[in-house]
Amino acid sequence: MTVVAVAGAGSWGTALAMVLADNGHEVRLWGHREELMQEINETRMNNRYLPGVELPDGICAYASLESALQDAEHILLVVPTKAYRDVLRQIRPMLSSPVTFIHASKGIEPDSSKRISEVIEEEIPAHLIASVVVLSGPSHAEEVGLRHPTTVTSASKHLEAAEMVQDLFMNSYFRVYTNPDIIGVELGGALKNIIALAAGITDGLGLGDNAKAALMTRGLAEIARLGRMMGANPLTFAGLTGMGDLIVTCTSVHSRNWRTGHMLGKGQSLEDVLANMGMVVEGVRTTKAAYQLAGKMNVEMPITIALHEVLFNGKSVKEAVESLMGRVRKHEMEAIPDLL
Amino acid sequence: MTVVAVAGAGSWGTALAMVLADNGHEVRLWGHREELMQEINETRMNNRYLPGVELPDGICAYASLESALQDAEHILLVVPTKAYRDVLRQIRPMLSSPVTFIHASKGIEPDSSKRISEVIEEEIPAHLIASVVVLSGPSHAEEVGLRHPTTVTSASKHLEAAEMVQDLFMNSYFRVYTNPDIIGVELGGALKNIIALAAGITDGLGLGDNAKAALMTRGLAEIARLGRMMGANPLTFAGLTGMGDLIVTCTSVHSRNWRTGHMLGKGQSLEDVLANMGMVVEGVRTTKAAYQLAGKMNVEMPITIALHEVLFNGKSVKEAVESLMGRVRKHEMEAIPDLL
Repeated sequence: MTVVAVAGAGSWGTALAMVLADNGHEVRLWGHREELMQEINETRMNNRYLPGVELPDGICAYASLESALQDAEHILLVVPTKAYRDVLRQIRPMLSSPVTFIHASKGIEPDSSKRISEVIEEEIPAHLIASVVVLSGPSHAEEVGLRHPTTVTSASKHLEAAEMVQDLFMNSYFRVYTNPDIIGVELGGALKNIIALAAGITDGLGLGDNAKAALMTRGLAEIARLGRMMGANPLTFAGLTGMGDLIVTCTSVHSRNWRTGHMLGKGQSLEDVLANMGMVVEGVRTTKAAYQLAGKMNVEMPITIALHEVLFNGKSVKEAVESLMGRVRKHEMEAIPDLL
Repeated sequence: MTVVAVAGAGSWGTALAMVLADNGHEVRLWGHREELMQEINETRMNNRYLPGVELPDGICAYASLESALQDAEHILLVVPTKAYRDVLRQIRPMLSSPVTFIHASKGIEPDSSKRISEVIEEEIPAHLIASVVVLSGPSHAEEVGLRHPTTVTSASKHLEAAEMVQDLFMNSYFRVYTNPDIIGVELGGALKNIIALAAGITDGLGLGDNAKAALMTRGLAEIARLGRMMGANPLTFAGLTGMGDLIVTCTSVHSRNWRTGHMLGKGQSLEDVLANMGMVVEGVRTTKAAYQLAGKMNVEMPITIALHEVLFNGKSVKEAVESLMGRVRKHEMEAIPDLL
């Protein structure tokens, strides 16, 4: 039995807390809304974010971060990407000995475009970090809540840390693979949102399954090319955190990025779509960041460039599709040797 | 303008004939049913196999293979895999000079488990073959009939031949990439049916999107491992004819393989399912062939093995899923270095 603090009581944080408690660990789930934390303790449910799932006894909810961290050997962070620095700055003075930081957030930090593990290493002094591990993969929280079979990847520069997290989470419905490529795993989770947006557009335009499959395949190839330039192993993009997560995101109507693209494909303006969503759509910001990086690093990313033109330069979605289909003829392998 | 004979007037043969005619080529579409061929010439429609699509004037249908082959510079073969040798033996004595053989059939020859390009090279003497080219990718014929954007791969050992076929087919809605790896392209189209069957089972069991995405990702990795042992470039499986075709097949209710798996997942026996389908399900045969090859070549294929147990040894689908989830813990990259 291990004591794990889970910072973030949204749907994914709650589902991962359930997995840990199912495995016999003592879980301290922290969220800043006092009523919600109290309700979780009283009803054994998080009806706001993971409705219908009865939580195991091993979970105790706290509105005080300090109480949640008491005696915790590991800290699992599952907060929105924009909240990371703030939460880490709260955690830092509460630590007296090194802990393992596990994070399960997909996306890059707004404005800085940094990976979350970089943000952790910037905000927490090295002597207080035992290891940083990323947990990522194709995983709707609702399905994990139902204990449906799910596979994820545990990534760390330190294999022992990745394996420790693998042991912590693995059970009969939750299968964990390890991967040393923390950069590729973090980038896959973030960059796939670009392709999910574009896939939503092709669906909104009614272009069909052939076009969508082509977009997903060529899209994964181009984000792998960018990932490689940023230090990732491009083969990571062929795994659960790349191809696997891309499939789940592009084929689910629950994905906010796909839904945004779908409305754009139906002819709405980005302004209207974002106003209607009333929340941040990660893929829009990620598209801008990837576009800039592709230019700087001289990486060929035709889908990202076409999407960027649609989002920020008023190109029509139909023109964008035509420009993609009308490119000079290509050797499929021209792109692929980059993967080696 | 080029004269192309298209042998096979099913949905895919007819759709490809339409693409060629749209590009200004003279197309001679051959099928053995005289009334159907006559109907196509009179109505400019193939209502049996590609209903609702008006065929361009450049297509002329023939019930005589000899007339269709007259002056043809290229022969596009789109017949069922089991009919190849028979059709090739009819063609052989009609040839007096070398022609390019293009084939667009997915699957391997029943019993022999040979690739279609191997069958062509066995049945036609070398001096009558200019080149063999394979055309494959994520492509529902119905969507091509509607001229929706579609991408495919043209594969040949001879780059000039692959490029010639690329030029022949490429237009504003049909984008063709070339790839020198004919083995990988042919195997991808055949082996993906194993994963489509398994994906149908997970959907039939109602296991959810997480499980299906994991199955598709890990499934593609294992068929790439087998492909590599059979001489393919494993990176071809990350392209349109691997990942792309897998996505189209696993996410479409039109796929016969997916439908078979779905019924198995719902609890029907293989015998009942096959009796109800009333036609060959390629993936069942391909699973047996891949299982045997994996054993012979010592390739780790857990999904194929589990599926084989379900199809041929009476294992329940639930037990099969449990055995896959309960395997010893794994390093995701253990499999992936095989790709290099």
